[in-house]
Amino acid sequence: MGDKPIWEQIGSSFIQHYYQLFDNDRTQLGAIYIDASCLTWEGQQFQGKAAIVEKLSSLPFQKIQHSITAQDHQPTPDSCIISMVVGQLKADEDPIMGFHQMFLLKNINDAWVCTNDMFRLALHNFG
Amino acid sequence: MGDKPIWEQIGSSFIQHYYQLFDNDRTQLGAIYIDASCLTWEGQQFQGKAAIVEKLSSLPFQKIQHSITAQDHQPTPDSCIISMVVGQLKADEDPIMGFHQMFLLKNINDAWVCTNDMFRLALHNFG
Repeated sequence: MGDKPIWEQIGSSFIQHYYQLFDNDRTQLGAIYIDASCLTWEGQQFQGKAAIVEKLSSLPFQKIQHSITAQDHQPTPDSCIISMVVGQLKADEDPIMGFHQMFLLKNINDAWVCTNDMFRLALHNFG
Repeated sequence: MGDKPIWEQIGSSFIQHYYQLFDNDRTQLGAIYIDASCLTWEGQQFQGKAAIVEKLSSLPFQKIQHSITAQDHQPTPDSCIISMVVGQLKADEDPIMGFHQMFLLKNINDAWVCTNDMFRLALHNFG
């Protein structure tokens, strides 16, 4: 990990932390958002930590497993980090589906938080 | 278009302009990038307007057609706009493929430019 640029290290460890938390106890995801955070989930928009956690907690599955196929990270001119993830997920007994997600991370009071989060299932592509 | 929030209007018109230019004459895409711009194309990283345009111009197809399945836009805390696109593309006579792309737009000297651009083909998902 050491030879990777710092923004890539931060982006990858955020991604690892996010999906671990999501897959194990997504009600705990509130810690990574702030009140200014925006989530777009399959086109539906949510604003603020509380609304985001409520949406993620109310998703209609008990078990979920994400697996990352590829992830890309870049630094932004405003000292943020942008991460894009391509992967597959399995919810309860449903068939495996592709997904992609994007995060914008910002360092606030020495902690990296997610200010922007966009999620889409990939199944539209081969509609 | 009028009732949409301004950041959604800007995001969608950028997306329209970008793919129109890409599909008609991608060598002209330099105008939307700046020297600080980063492009990650299928995991390969490029920095700066010149390197980005060279990469896009050297892509191995004559004809390309993008069609957008879904697009999401959000404002960021640093007054940027973040856009995520899911769609399909057809290059020359190759089969149609899914893709997804993400742009971070920043207003510099009254013009919206792309500071961060990430592209991936979606075919990994159903590997």
